[in-house]
Amino acid sequence: MKAAPQFADWLSRTNDVTSRFIGAARIPGLINVAGGLPDPSLFPVDALADIAARAIREHPQDTLAYGPTAGNPELREALAAKFRARGVNVTAENVLVTASGSQALDLVGKALIDPGAPVACVFPTYLGALDSWRPRDPSYRHIDLADPAATRTALDGARYAYLIPNFSNPTGHLVDLEGRETLLAAATATGTPIVEDDPYGALYFDGPRLPTLLELSARGTDGPYEGPVIHLGSMSKQLCPGLRVGWVVAAKETIKVLSTAKQATDLCSNGLAQMMTLGAFQSGLIDAVHPKAIALYSARRDALCDALKTHLAAEFEWERPVGGMFVWARARDRSLDLDALVERGVEQGVLVGPGHVFDPLKVDGPALRLNFTLNDEERLATAMQRLKAAMQATRRKAA
Amino acid sequence: MKAAPQFADWLSRTNDVTSRFIGAARIPGLINVAGGLPDPSLFPVDALADIAARAIREHPQDTLAYGPTAGNPELREALAAKFRARGVNVTAENVLVTASGSQALDLVGKALIDPGAPVACVFPTYLGALDSWRPRDPSYRHIDLADPAATRTALDGARYAYLIPNFSNPTGHLVDLEGRETLLAAATATGTPIVEDDPYGALYFDGPRLPTLLELSARGTDGPYEGPVIHLGSMSKQLCPGLRVGWVVAAKETIKVLSTAKQATDLCSNGLAQMMTLGAFQSGLIDAVHPKAIALYSARRDALCDALKTHLAAEFEWERPVGGMFVWARARDRSLDLDALVERGVEQGVLVGPGHVFDPLKVDGPALRLNFTLNDEERLATAMQRLKAAMQATRRKAA
Repeated sequence: MKAAPQFADWLSRTNDVTSRFIGAARIPGLINVAGGLPDPSLFPVDALADIAARAIREHPQDTLAYGPTAGNPELREALAAKFRARGVNVTAENVLVTASGSQALDLVGKALIDPGAPVACVFPTYLGALDSWRPRDPSYRHIDLADPAATRTALDGARYAYLIPNFSNPTGHLVDLEGRETLLAAATATGTPIVEDDPYGALYFDGPRLPTLLELSARGTDGPYEGPVIHLGSMSKQLCPGLRVGWVVAAKETIKVLSTAKQATDLCSNGLAQMMTLGAFQSGLIDAVHPKAIALYSARRDALCDALKTHLAAEFEWERPVGGMFVWARARDRSLDLDALVERGVEQGVLVGPGHVFDPLKVDGPALRLNFTLNDEERLATAMQRLKAAMQATRRKAA
Repeated sequence: MKAAPQFADWLSRTNDVTSRFIGAARIPGLINVAGGLPDPSLFPVDALADIAARAIREHPQDTLAYGPTAGNPELREALAAKFRARGVNVTAENVLVTASGSQALDLVGKALIDPGAPVACVFPTYLGALDSWRPRDPSYRHIDLADPAATRTALDGARYAYLIPNFSNPTGHLVDLEGRETLLAAATATGTPIVEDDPYGALYFDGPRLPTLLELSARGTDGPYEGPVIHLGSMSKQLCPGLRVGWVVAAKETIKVLSTAKQATDLCSNGLAQMMTLGAFQSGLIDAVHPKAIALYSARRDALCDALKTHLAAEFEWERPVGGMFVWARARDRSLDLDALVERGVEQGVLVGPGHVFDPLKVDGPALRLNFTLNDEERLATAMQRLKAAMQATRRKAA
């Protein structure tokens, strides 16, 4: 008797990018600049081992029993305090702890999308967000922040606007203050909430930190936060991704609804991971990791951009990102076959991310997402040499 | 500027049972027999603290970095080996590790339900399963296992059949071998998969263990498992719920599709919790906990049934469960106002679970779900005395 289940429709519309990449990443000697992984050398292994053992022994109920759906109350309060320190008037009731930033995206889709409903995004955008919302079957609109009237039109009637204002995945782009204000004005005019995804907000390498949309939307208001921003954060790029701890900060009513969606998703998050996060905040561990991450990653950003300039300036143009994990390299030849280039890259020993998977509306032309956080300077230079060879091979095959 | 998001339609069809109960459970002196919590005295706190610290120090990549979506490969293999020992020919590729049994239900709904599609359940059934599938908006049919023809009709065209054959939540009922074979025959005849939810399978107090539907469906077959059963398990009732580790065992194709759904849900599970689960299996910790749990819980089952007999035999009838966590007490007065009884119960200092939330098709009449795992014998006896007083108060108000 062979199983022949009828699977849900949305599964016929998925992509296998991630699994193909995981397969390719196993090839020996391949340099992977396609992913978005932090450098494991930054994980404070011994400190986390101590924190974990102590948390279980001293708080067996919080770590081993079922916990509240919305998260450990102390962690919710600790997160609220961090946002209050930046001028956002929030309490624990404005905070939902999630089992990763990815789960926060899933919950946003569950709570806010009905089949066919419009969602407005700044494209190209995060593939994982598009993946997480596919089961809810939204329709998409592009937000062009350079055009305030078009931004307002894009938001009008949309369930929410989505963007990563700090060093977007995949483009590494930092939305400037004017763009942030344009978006908030459109949200105010239309009543459409903004989902501000901020996994990279701690990774500012150069220049002053810009206020988040959450902070901007709280300015000049009294009383508890009731603004339009649904702000998502995560431990993955601040400490380590294996904990699977993220959070949402938003108006209380929105947090209540997202908690209902979380109850329907996993009842509650892992208690130990939440206690470890709390311990990492309270012990100063996270504050100690930040400057190390910034020093390591900004040097690698420089190395990648230097190697691009040396080997590929004639082929690509790019913005030097002032933070985050990615460089977005646009092909000067707008007819370049990106999939062919990715294949030639694997043959040459470098794995790069094809841009079109982040850009279903084809807002941008052929481009690559290049990650600079996982590999050291030497490997990044080698990767760009190999990419140059792949580019030449692609041209030869096309000719 | 006040947030006014438009929330998804399904949120208007949720219930607040769980949150009302969490609120009521905070009342001092209240005895809670409404929930489904394991006794925390069974958690092997020190052993888990040691396992956690060692796992982080010795396996920082497995515990702190991103892991494979389908789960830690060693844990998948260890789980496969457990099922092979019971005659089911499975490998790691037949196993998906989930972030709790609840997540497994969410993934089943995502992967198998399109809006409006029929799902067949043995009602009354687990409230958390109904909650997890509500965002997918299925329609429901009841399966009456006593009637093979009706069972086949219920399964015909349904996306799947769902049941908890071992000590169902809420009824505590053990589906006998005949019922299991009826269901499998219907699955074979219709091609409809069976979702076998088995969180309580380790909690057999009396009598021989019956083969799971997974085991039955694998009998007499050669080669890797390709049967119709999607088997769900969890650590929550075997070791502790705070880890949030569950699993799915099914045909490889189904596991692949569920992995795609998981990738869209949280990318991957907490690595440390998976390593702790593996460590708890390998060190024999779980095997050591099982007999303690069975001794503790079967004595409490006896105490609850004795107290019911002493105080409430005229009001309720019930089946003495041979395992699990619940007694299902059916009111002899089929017009009893259950919600009123629950309210009077809170006034008397006992919280009981109203049966109708598990029974949206009204297959059964007024009943209570009574949990016997969290409270000791004395408290259970007191709880039933209080329930008797609540019953008398309900009658006085109705008169």
